[in-house]
Amino acid sequence: MSRTKQPEIIHQPAARHRPPLLHSWLIGRPLPTADAAHQAIGRAVGLAVFASDALSSTAYATQEILVILAVAGSIAFGYAFPIAVVIVGLLIIVTSSYEQTIHAYPGGGGAYIVSRDNLGSLAAQVAGAALLTDYILTVSVSVSAGVAQVVSAFPFLFNYRVLLAVGMVLVIMLINLRGVKESGIIFAIPTYFFLLMVFGMVVTGLVRVVSGSLGTLNSPPPLEIEATGTITLFLLLHAFSSGTTALTGVEAISNGITAFKEPRSRNAGQTLLWMTGILGVLFLGITFLAGKIGAVPSEIETVISQLARTIYSTRGFLYLGVIASTALILVMAANTAFADFPRLSALQASDGYLPRQLAYRGSRLVYSRGIITLAAIAALIIILFDANVSSLIPLYAIGVFLSFTLSQAGMARRWFKIGRLAAGEEVQERGSILRYDPGWRWKMVVNGFGAVCTAVVMMIFLVTKFFDGAWLVGLLIPLLVYFLFTIHQHYLDLADALTLSDYKAQPSLKKHRIIMPVSTVHKGTLKALRFARSLSGKNTISGVFVSFDDPQTELLQERWKKWASDVPLVVIDSPYRELIHPLVMYIEEQVKNSKPDEIVTVIVPEFIPRRWWNNFLHVQTAIMLRWALRHVPGVVVIDVPYHVD
Amino acid sequence: MSRTKQPEIIHQPAARHRPPLLHSWLIGRPLPTADAAHQAIGRAVGLAVFASDALSSTAYATQEILVILAVAGSIAFGYAFPIAVVIVGLLIIVTSSYEQTIHAYPGGGGAYIVSRDNLGSLAAQVAGAALLTDYILTVSVSVSAGVAQVVSAFPFLFNYRVLLAVGMVLVIMLINLRGVKESGIIFAIPTYFFLLMVFGMVVTGLVRVVSGSLGTLNSPPPLEIEATGTITLFLLLHAFSSGTTALTGVEAISNGITAFKEPRSRNAGQTLLWMTGILGVLFLGITFLAGKIGAVPSEIETVISQLARTIYSTRGFLYLGVIASTALILVMAANTAFADFPRLSALQASDGYLPRQLAYRGSRLVYSRGIITLAAIAALIIILFDANVSSLIPLYAIGVFLSFTLSQAGMARRWFKIGRLAAGEEVQERGSILRYDPGWRWKMVVNGFGAVCTAVVMMIFLVTKFFDGAWLVGLLIPLLVYFLFTIHQHYLDLADALTLSDYKAQPSLKKHRIIMPVSTVHKGTLKALRFARSLSGKNTISGVFVSFDDPQTELLQERWKKWASDVPLVVIDSPYRELIHPLVMYIEEQVKNSKPDEIVTVIVPEFIPRRWWNNFLHVQTAIMLRWALRHVPGVVVIDVPYHVD
Repeated sequence: MSRTKQPEIIHQPAARHRPPLLHSWLIGRPLPTADAAHQAIGRAVGLAVFASDALSSTAYATQEILVILAVAGSIAFGYAFPIAVVIVGLLIIVTSSYEQTIHAYPGGGGAYIVSRDNLGSLAAQVAGAALLTDYILTVSVSVSAGVAQVVSAFPFLFNYRVLLAVGMVLVIMLINLRGVKESGIIFAIPTYFFLLMVFGMVVTGLVRVVSGSLGTLNSPPPLEIEATGTITLFLLLHAFSSGTTALTGVEAISNGITAFKEPRSRNAGQTLLWMTGILGVLFLGITFLAGKIGAVPSEIETVISQLARTIYSTRGFLYLGVIASTALILVMAANTAFADFPRLSALQASDGYLPRQLAYRGSRLVYSRGIITLAAIAALIIILFDANVSSLIPLYAIGVFLSFTLSQAGMARRWFKIGRLAAGEEVQERGSILRYDPGWRWKMVVNGFGAVCTAVVMMIFLVTKFFDGAWLVGLLIPLLVYFLFTIHQHYLDLADALTLSDYKAQPSLKKHRIIMPVSTVHKGTLKALRFARSLSGKNTISGVFVSFDDPQTELLQERWKKWASDVPLVVIDSPYRELIHPLVMYIEEQVKNSKPDEIVTVIVPEFIPRRWWNNFLHVQTAIMLRWALRHVPGVVVIDVPYHVD
Repeated sequence: MSRTKQPEIIHQPAARHRPPLLHSWLIGRPLPTADAAHQAIGRAVGLAVFASDALSSTAYATQEILVILAVAGSIAFGYAFPIAVVIVGLLIIVTSSYEQTIHAYPGGGGAYIVSRDNLGSLAAQVAGAALLTDYILTVSVSVSAGVAQVVSAFPFLFNYRVLLAVGMVLVIMLINLRGVKESGIIFAIPTYFFLLMVFGMVVTGLVRVVSGSLGTLNSPPPLEIEATGTITLFLLLHAFSSGTTALTGVEAISNGITAFKEPRSRNAGQTLLWMTGILGVLFLGITFLAGKIGAVPSEIETVISQLARTIYSTRGFLYLGVIASTALILVMAANTAFADFPRLSALQASDGYLPRQLAYRGSRLVYSRGIITLAAIAALIIILFDANVSSLIPLYAIGVFLSFTLSQAGMARRWFKIGRLAAGEEVQERGSILRYDPGWRWKMVVNGFGAVCTAVVMMIFLVTKFFDGAWLVGLLIPLLVYFLFTIHQHYLDLADALTLSDYKAQPSLKKHRIIMPVSTVHKGTLKALRFARSLSGKNTISGVFVSFDDPQTELLQERWKKWASDVPLVVIDSPYRELIHPLVMYIEEQVKNSKPDEIVTVIVPEFIPRRWWNNFLHVQTAIMLRWALRHVPGVVVIDVPYHVD
């Protein structure tokens, strides 16, 4: 007693596909969808994957502060530690905000989702654009920085630096295509090596401070800047904003929650706390010790190198370990971007703001297309900027702080919504559940304060670094957002056009007007003719030949009489030796003369050569005709292939 | 009472096509095939088009001889004129051979056709390969030489020389695409300007010699080579072979006969004689005068410049005219190659040794594809060699002499065949008529002697310039010949495979197994389904959906029940998230299960977006599936397009 007839539905498994050997060797064997849970990572690997970007900033954040203070002379270096303390305070606010976010959005939080669900799609796409830019630049900048270190050790590689950098991007890409778990394990080694070396150095340094045995820096590199001697507010703000580079990467975990093992939020949250703890301690420790030994910002020797040789009193194995691990962690920062970019772009793609293909998982269950896209754009930037990308650094710090601001503003708004619920009430809202929380006021204030702080830092950044390139951000992000909304509009229009909600059933097609363009009569032509005849019914068939008024016209008519005498042949004279245009005009005329229940079906014999290069030896009429007819409605083109073996 | 039924044959004119405005503006309005006769050129324009390559060699041939003789010291310069006389003797032999060829092969002679009809296809393709190489290198070398002159006058252009050279190639290409007549008229101006200036100089010089008023060169440029003082046979041969560069371009007219007005052979033959006369007089005159004034080969100042300033006693307008017209004629040499390359490649293409497309005439009745191919390859060589191509000169002189040798050997063989005819007998042989000629013995001896001479020169060239790059020719020409024969084999195989001589009529197709891959159900899907149903008859239709085990599977089945309840649906589970492979496997299975009178017809709904970039926002399943199925015999893929407006 069913209302409609039930169609027969047959389920069957797919034939097993063995991918090419090279594919398996590079990427690994394909993983079934059911394996997804086994690909999740724990906290130790998660820290390596998602923290390396943030932790790498300890390698240069202190130096960034000192470089700015140097303008006022070494007298100003005393402000470095207080500034670092303020930055760590900001770090704690941002972290607590993200910690809340991670628990509120276990399905993958981050600035994008928080903005989307609480501030609307414009804010969400702004956050998305800022973060995508951030990830792309992180890869370009960190890989170039790593290559710069290698090149300064081996100067004969200088001419190959672009090649080296692009090669490194490709290697990181390949390893990431193997899946997040495998890449995480591979890249955990350099990250933990860095932590070991730098923690060791900081602890040794502090012990020597306490024991009073830590001296000052021997033969410091020369201060390259002519000091003004005056400390201005602008200078301190500038130094502060430069130092906030230490915060970049803090958002990484919030975008990567779905990579973690269950319980996801708990694992991701704890990893975040660990990361912030380590980052804060290292940053404060390094800045403190740099002040103690009288480190000097220099292009010749990094502050880390000055610290290491002073703390270890010599350039021995431990010194070399610190230097090598620092170079490594800079490159590892790129890996964090490779973990986050594909996840974020998949989210935006499934919301219809980026090409949908980015939301499909590849053979190793990662978003392969996102990984490849990231590698391609980052490599392009490296090539365009000749692997000399330090000028891009101000650009992406702004993007990061923009996403911090939006994320925290979104959370503040969320607490506000929660505050308006009755006690004990729960509301499902897209990806998360709003549940009444008596502490909502306090939490709203924390997030709101955080949003204001990061917004202020962003403004400071924009003003102080405006002429260093920050102005570009003002162009780039709006452009990218426009681009995202253009894509979205396309998907909306398409859905509108294809919806069946207003569908009126069309009368069934009664007749095909079959047109068969021919250039000669051979086995392929007869094969196509046989196909045309099989459509039969009330259909009409006619051959069409475009004549250039040469011996071929005569020959064709002879052959047509012999082999296709039952099919009428239209000969179009083409005095200007044009082939495609007269055919298209003829076909369009046939379409015009068709009734609504008729369709014009063009059948083209298409030669498929055995070897690809043989295609160059043939006029690709079939392909050109298909291309020319693709915008003519009411025509269906059928290529009947013939193979030569 | 006809043997077979006569098909209806309808003739109709093509709809007039208005080409895009840019096309008309660049190339000119299309010309109908019937206009071909009006595009033929007379002797004056023919001389400009086909002689500029040969005449341009007077600008450097004398200098080439002196450079080699300089090795023995200025004492050896006295040998230059005798060597020039021998070269002019060779020129006369070669010319008389080509003059005969032109009359024997009025349908477009040249080394290629003469070799093909008298020496077989291997010799013909060797001649073709040598000439094609020659033309390509002529363009690269002459344009680069012209740019080098411009750059030495305006040194700030040095960094743009590759751009300038490529731009010049494109301009010459565009002008040639306008048709041989129009380009001939445009390029006649610089050619006749050159003749005027250089003839004026030579005549003035000779008058001053006779009147005894011609002094010797003032402040000659320094001789850069340390002289050995000994004159060896090798040295003289080397100088002779370098001087034979004066002969390059003599073959041009024989390859371009079809460009001339009727009577073609007469017009082409007279143009050839004029060209040789001018070339011989100028070459002897310049070499003679160079000896009189004591000109010195130099990289700093050309012999022509030395001559002009000595003859005119000052660097005035006449001097500048000579210099400017010499620079111009060097570039014009490229135009000769643009006239010949497309004709030769069209001949080879219609014989099936090059892609057939090269034999089709473009909208202006020239072989546009040949012109564009020549420009592209020449530009590529300019880019690869950084517009510094003088090292390629030895390469193409060898090719020229190879074609001389083959052409004359072919003519000698032709006279031998004629000698075996009875008096008054005529035999048609491919493109020409063999007619008994009582003087055949003498003519055979002349051509045979010419062949031996040019073969000897080629050997001298090969030996003396072996390490300068001539060895490359030994690799390049055989490789190109192999390539030509590979193409030919492809066309032979294809003709074999498609011939209807052994054709057995196939049983007509009784049934289509229609398979319709779907990813969702929308208006496009229903349109494709409507098309599928219209094929009907005994056909079966089934939908195929590849399931990734996600919510979409459920949704699709729901919709299928609602909209296509009469069509069975096959759901293929794809645990590895592969789309194309399971479909192809399923379709191949259906092919395997088909009877001989059944065909598997795959109908794919294909979305055609309005804007091209929208294609990137869609998985191009239709295209990928078509590509994957193109080598599966027994399958026809039908894309049913749906447009969104």
